[in-house]
This record gives sequence, C-alpha cells and structure tokens, in this order.
Amino acid sequence: MKEKLTIVKVGGAVVEDELQLSQLLKDFCAIEGCKVLVHGGGRKATKMAERLGIETQMVNGRRITDAQMLEVVTMVYGGLVNKNLVARLQANGVNALGLTGADANIILSHKRPIKDGVDYGFVGDVDHVSNTTLSHLIEAGIVPVVAPLTHDGEGHILNTNADTMASETAKALAKDYDVTLIFSFEKKGVLSNPDDDESVIPVITHADFERYKADGTISGGMLPKIENALSAVDAGVSQVIITLATAIDGQHGTVIK
Amino acid sequence: MKEKLTIVKVGGAVVEDELQLSQLLKDFCAIEGCKVLVHGGGRKATKMAERLGIETQMVNGRRITDAQMLEVVTMVYGGLVNKNLVARLQANGVNALGLTGADANIILSHKRPIKDGVDYGFVGDVDHVSNTTLSHLIEAGIVPVVAPLTHDGEGHILNTNADTMASETAKALAKDYDVTLIFSFEKKGVLSNPDDDESVIPVITHADFERYKADGTISGGMLPKIENALSAVDAGVSQVIITLATAIDGQHGTVIK
Repeated sequence: MKEKLTIVKVGGAVVEDELQLSQLLKDFCAIEGCKVLVHGGGRKATKMAERLGIETQMVNGRRITDAQMLEVVTMVYGGLVNKNLVARLQANGVNALGLTGADANIILSHKRPIKDGVDYGFVGDVDHVSNTTLSHLIEAGIVPVVAPLTHDGEGHILNTNADTMASETAKALAKDYDVTLIFSFEKKGVLSNPDDDESVIPVITHADFERYKADGTISGGMLPKIENALSAVDAGVSQVIITLATAIDGQHGTVIK
Repeated sequence: MKEKLTIVKVGGAVVEDELQLSQLLKDFCAIEGCKVLVHGGGRKATKMAERLGIETQMVNGRRITDAQMLEVVTMVYGGLVNKNLVARLQANGVNALGLTGADANIILSHKRPIKDGVDYGFVGDVDHVSNTTLSHLIEAGIVPVVAPLTHDGEGHILNTNADTMASETAKALAKDYDVTLIFSFEKKGVLSNPDDDESVIPVITHADFERYKADGTISGGMLPKIENALSAVDAGVSQVIITLATAIDGQHGTVIK
C-alpha cells in the first residue's frame, strides 16, 4: 500500500490575506504524513508591478508575462511569497523547502506558443514533473513549498499557472504515493449558485461536470480548475477536493471524482 | 580521505555584469566534483529599491534593512537572482537547487542587536549551518545555490552577508568534505597597491594579515573578507582563495593560510 501524501494548493487571494493565510498555515502544519504546498501570489505580483509602473494585462484570467513582468513574478513568487511561507512553516516545525520548477530540475516546461493571436509571453506549459527527485526530498522528511515558476531547460524561468502545477505535481507523485490534492480558495467549494455561499456541490463527476458546464451552473475561472482536478483523478490521484482555505482537513468542500 | 568540495562565492558586482557572470557560470560548471555557489546581489537590490522609491542606507559597507528593504532583498536575492542562476546552471547540466537559510532550516541566525547606536534592522548573524542537510543534498547530486538570506526560526527572513554565509557554510561542510573556498570578486586578488591591479599578494597568513592591517596595506571592505577567510582556515577549511570572478580555477589569486 502506498504512503499517504497531501498536496495543498493555496491561491494568491489567500496568500494576500494575513488572517486566512495564518489559519491555512496552521491547518497545513496539522496535516499528518507527507505533504506539499503549492502557492500562487498573483495579487501580490499585480501590486508589485503597479509599484514599479508595470501594467498588468490578463487574457482569460491568465497573466501576459513580458520580460519585465517575468522579473516581477520571479521576485514575488520565487522570493517574497515562497521564502516567507518557508520561514513561517519552519517556525511551526515543518521542514519546508522552497522550490520552483527550475530547482533540481523538478518541473520542466516549454514557452506557450502564440495561439489565437494571443502571445502570453514567458508563460510555461508543463512538460514533465520529476517524481523521483520530489519523492527523494519527501522521503528525507522535507516538505516542498512550490512556487508557480518552471524552467525551459535552456536557462529561462517561465511563469506557470499554480493550479496546473499542483495537478501536474499530484499526477507525478501518484506514481509513488496515495495522493490527496486539495485546491483551497475563498469559497466553501464549487457552488451551484454563485450568490449563495452555502450552495456547495458535494461531488462532481466527469458526467456532472459536462452537465453543469452545458447548463451554465459552472463557468468562468472555475472551469479550468475543475478540468485540472478531473485530469488529476484520471491520472491516478486518489482524491481531489475543492474547498475553503480555512477548511483543508479533507472533510469539507467539493469532491471531484 | 574526505571527498573534495568547492564553494564559490560570487558578489553583487559580478551578478550585475552579464559578461563576467556568464564566464563565471561557465567556469563554475567546469569545476569537477561536489560544489556550492553562494551569491550576493546587493547592486540589484539597490537598483530595485530605488525603482520602488526606497532609500538604501549603508553603514560600514552593510545594508540597513528595515521592513521595506527586507521585502526587496527577499525578492531580489531569493527570487530574481537565485532562480535565474539556478535556471542557467540547469541549462548547463548542473543540477542546481536554490536555497536560503530558511529552506530545510539550513542556516539559522539571530537578528543583530543594536550596537554602538547602529540598528541594522532585519540583518542576521549566523548561529548554525546544518552540514547534515547540506551534505545529504550534495550526496544526492544536487549543487546548492545559496542566496544571502537566513531565518531566525521564528518565522522571519533575515538579510545576511554573503561572505559570512560562504565562510560559515565552508566551515560546516569541512566536517564532511575537503573544502576549497573561493571568494571571487572584481580584482585579481588581494592587492598590495590598490592602484596596481597586478600587485596581487600571493599568500596571506594570520601574521601577514596583522602586519598588513597595521601598516595600512589592507583596509576597508577587504578587512572583513580576509577575517572571514582566516576564520574558515582556522575551522578546518583546506584552502581559501580570493580571486577574480573569471579565474576561479584555484590556480590564481591570493591564498589565505
């Protein structure tokens, strides 16, 4: 039987909010066994870009990353957010180690080609996650804290979607572990009515997803999140849950099957 | 017999200069056996602070690090400089992994107390370097790339002098390895005449250092660098060399004995 491993993805909105973040870190520390934290940081990057006079451009919820914006996200995700999370986890007895995909060549990607006239710039689409290197670190008692940056193997850092990194990491580690993947965010789960925070859909299967997509119940930024979740389930991840950042115990939220 | 390990420290002036940096990385890649890169980044931090409207204050060549400046150095050292070095080394077949002292609790420090009326702010003085964790990574074929940041174990990142980090890391790893420590910078070595770039002093012992210090041959920023070097020799580091960033083969520069 494979050992249990929990991967928690925490987004930029939670990273930005001290109250939510400290609760999340407390809950993350309480998770037993092997674990990995994957974080975003988009809101902090947008603020830092603004302070530097760099305009943030988003297309379909994704950041256009020119050379200047790449500097900002490399600093903010890889430095500011990642290292502060690591220091705080260490203070709570979790042996955290901050990583980008470039570190130990853990996640290799390629620069997204121009598609439908949109040039996302220095954005990476994941090609490969090294489960052997990650597993080796985890076996040594390390808790990887992964920033949403990868590299192309040719010396360039690429900005990479944190949800995608979490699901790709979960898929790779499913070879070695019994993986639970938890996408935490600012809602209690996937809602059937966006105006009712209590309307959490308890379970979503592939068939449910197609139905909800067709009838418009699920739309916008939730679509790629659930697609990421479903692809993780298909690739052998034992459990995927979408839940509130302050309820990551695996007992709340929407289970994706 | 202990295995050989080379630690190269590269300063902010070289990190800033693409021509020198690419040569240094090429030479670093060519070093055989186990190795560690420790980098600075002060000039980039000063520039970034300026862009953000934050004033840089230096006392005795050391940066005063208030909360705002701590954000800047955490971003620039831990993110921008570190991750780009890692990606470039990976592109050259070196299995680099970027670390601050907080990562895997490798280097613990304490906030420097106010002394002689100077409050350096969030600056760390090194208490402990974990040779076991570093050695474990190195044995796994990893090349640590260390940014000049440590943590206090209570959740705070602290700005830490890169020369000190290099010598403390060298001392700790001397327990497990036959360590050569190379301080690379923009001169060919320690000069007897600051106006003559060729006046490299080939060897400096403790006794030489006291003499040179007394007669004023060596002064300013070179003093703490040589003190760091001598303390490393005293603690069992096999060889310490101060040399040009583009001559890190161990055959050039000033040998500190």
